[in-house]
Amino acid sequence: MKDRVEVRSLKDHVGEEVTLGGWCYNSRGSKNVKFLQLRDGSGTVQCVFGGNSAQNNAFERFDEITQETSLYVTGVVVKHPKKEGVYEIDARDFEIIQVAVDYPITPKEHGIDFLFDRRHLHLRSSRPHAIIRVRHRIIKAIRDYFDSHGFTLLDSPILTANAGEGTSTLFATDYFDLGKAFLAQTGQLYGEAGAMAFGKVYTFGPTFRAEKSKTRRHLTEFWMVEPEVAFMDLDGDMNLAEDFICYVVECILADCREDLATLERDIAKLESVRKPFPRVTYTEAVEILRRKGREFEWGDDFGAPDETMVSEDFDRPVIITHYPTVIKAFYMKRDPDNPKVVKAMDVIAPEGYGEIIGGSQREDDIDLLRERIEHEKLPMEVFEWYLDLRRYGSVPHAGFGMGLERMVAWLCGLEHIREAIPFPRTLARLTP
Amino acid sequence: MKDRVEVRSLKDHVGEEVTLGGWCYNSRGSKNVKFLQLRDGSGTVQCVFGGNSAQNNAFERFDEITQETSLYVTGVVVKHPKKEGVYEIDARDFEIIQVAVDYPITPKEHGIDFLFDRRHLHLRSSRPHAIIRVRHRIIKAIRDYFDSHGFTLLDSPILTANAGEGTSTLFATDYFDLGKAFLAQTGQLYGEAGAMAFGKVYTFGPTFRAEKSKTRRHLTEFWMVEPEVAFMDLDGDMNLAEDFICYVVECILADCREDLATLERDIAKLESVRKPFPRVTYTEAVEILRRKGREFEWGDDFGAPDETMVSEDFDRPVIITHYPTVIKAFYMKRDPDNPKVVKAMDVIAPEGYGEIIGGSQREDDIDLLRERIEHEKLPMEVFEWYLDLRRYGSVPHAGFGMGLERMVAWLCGLEHIREAIPFPRTLARLTP
Repeated sequence: MKDRVEVRSLKDHVGEEVTLGGWCYNSRGSKNVKFLQLRDGSGTVQCVFGGNSAQNNAFERFDEITQETSLYVTGVVVKHPKKEGVYEIDARDFEIIQVAVDYPITPKEHGIDFLFDRRHLHLRSSRPHAIIRVRHRIIKAIRDYFDSHGFTLLDSPILTANAGEGTSTLFATDYFDLGKAFLAQTGQLYGEAGAMAFGKVYTFGPTFRAEKSKTRRHLTEFWMVEPEVAFMDLDGDMNLAEDFICYVVECILADCREDLATLERDIAKLESVRKPFPRVTYTEAVEILRRKGREFEWGDDFGAPDETMVSEDFDRPVIITHYPTVIKAFYMKRDPDNPKVVKAMDVIAPEGYGEIIGGSQREDDIDLLRERIEHEKLPMEVFEWYLDLRRYGSVPHAGFGMGLERMVAWLCGLEHIREAIPFPRTLARLTP
Repeated sequence: MKDRVEVRSLKDHVGEEVTLGGWCYNSRGSKNVKFLQLRDGSGTVQCVFGGNSAQNNAFERFDEITQETSLYVTGVVVKHPKKEGVYEIDARDFEIIQVAVDYPITPKEHGIDFLFDRRHLHLRSSRPHAIIRVRHRIIKAIRDYFDSHGFTLLDSPILTANAGEGTSTLFATDYFDLGKAFLAQTGQLYGEAGAMAFGKVYTFGPTFRAEKSKTRRHLTEFWMVEPEVAFMDLDGDMNLAEDFICYVVECILADCREDLATLERDIAKLESVRKPFPRVTYTEAVEILRRKGREFEWGDDFGAPDETMVSEDFDRPVIITHYPTVIKAFYMKRDPDNPKVVKAMDVIAPEGYGEIIGGSQREDDIDLLRERIEHEKLPMEVFEWYLDLRRYGSVPHAGFGMGLERMVAWLCGLEHIREAIPFPRTLARLTP
């Protein structure tokens, strides 16, 4: 293998002759000078071939370099005459590794389906490249937050025998002699077992919903992070969610300026994401909707337009609490002062990005929990192990789930969630 | 919620009266003094109730505290009179949250199936608790290594339309109108697409094999980390694997001494894991086996006993390279000097833990790759997108996969891989 220097480390080699390896992102030229935008995954650099300094007929051979041709370029690293922090290559020679013929994704506009049918190539383009880098930084921020706050990572299983929130939206597979296995929609029930063992845990992995939704906010496969904490109530849950989101946003603002600029993200919108987040009850949110002229029945669930209407008055995420019991999952703790509502909270992102977090204090009384399981007509026997957590040293506990791709979409300012994951899976897409 | 202090931070509260919340891990008492081992997930502390200092009849009520009863304990933090770094609670009072009646996992010995049927409770016991903490530290070390070496995280999809290494060991699920989806056995093919876009990537997520293996080294669901690097050959791949393993082992030795002591792990065995790792070709490994009296045909694959026999002479992992082409996957690059072998490498852990890493340089020539796909009778059409990576700017590249649970089993010294994951899935186990 040739000794190469990465584009990201050119600043350490100013004045030196180096060899780069990468792909032709773009090229243009005139009679006297040729420009090659070379990308190597770590960055992109302009390589300038002049008629005099080029060796081995590099100047004459330049037109062999088509888009996405792989090659080595040798030249001297120079500072850009005007732009601070930008470097160029005063190129001497190049060696083609493989000529790319008719690369399908040209600089012109392409349709969305065309691009996602070629997602394995599309990731080389500047926009998806920037998004996946921000996604990586978000994931690192998420893990760093929990790792540095005393949480233990508890990977929950994907293949499960029991369904968390009903079976209608589950993918199923045959599991040897044990019947069907379902792909997990959540790791929460396992997280609760973990909280009783480790105090504070988080699960973070892919989750699955076989929903026939064709919206810009749904994927069939998406990543979810779910912290769960023993000895925490709804207030603690909200404080955790707020602190956590602010940390992630700070990390992105600190480290991803260049990628956000590529995405033309309005940074000011993210800079206003600071504690405290406004908190309103579901009932108050219904009043907000009605004041804005929307007819809304107490007890109905919010749709995306409702969430947007409630959140549009705020410059940061808003937390909605105390939802009607009837529209929330069986494991949420009912408010002892008003059992018609549960100690739940959703965090609604600004700018119309909708729910990014859903959480609650969990029912820790075995009798009340049994009552809810019966009322929802769920099969009691598959929850026996879950009931054990209330049988043997039950404690108040709470947690939440955050959909990673919704967070990525919000922070990057994406219109459609499919851009927030390397290889999206939707109702109509299973490839590449 | 009561203001609580966690066991892990008692050192900051010596001399203060604090309240702890947790579970009774164990208790014993005499006429004059009662001892409660209180665990709160962050650690375990001894709470000492004396007849004189206890308040509210705490001393008399002590026997209400059964194993795994949840409770608050109030008392003064004191340094252990003899043991450095150990603290105790001079307990004044306690408040029971919920009495646990007949907790099934008692301090006596239980069978393996009994414990794994109760895995949701078993995680509270000291041994699984220590293993999962070490697992978490290993995962963090893995991510830190790649994050700090310029790799971009590329989450590969679980639901896939194409099979990486054959369809016989795949879990399948119906996918709307698109036919069957298969649960990914590897993210490698996606990683290769990523390497062409980002230079260096890693995937890290759950992978699935519907294998009917009932060995102590197989799970149907396990986590795998797979780095993939453009412009890297087999030598680079081996150097990366070696450096990576040494880093992970160093982190565990630095941060997990207490948990490794709980597991009675022989630390000296891990301290010898240092660069360079011995490297032998497959052919040399066959000679080693024969010298040791084993009949072995060149071209056969190694079984677990063969790997152990090759590795037992070394005090650190051994890398075996240049396996026969016929026993390795179609995407591995054949050695131009000897096409009967591929540029593959497996890393075999010491102490009989077997293969922990499998990797190779990938075939980057589209014609040779097509030839292999045809020869293996794989359906060419599902690999068209993968062939694109050789069509548009192909470059030499290499990578490997490391099974997380095998790494955990080795570093923790576990006999069976099922202990290395919170909720194991095997041929016979899908619950809890």
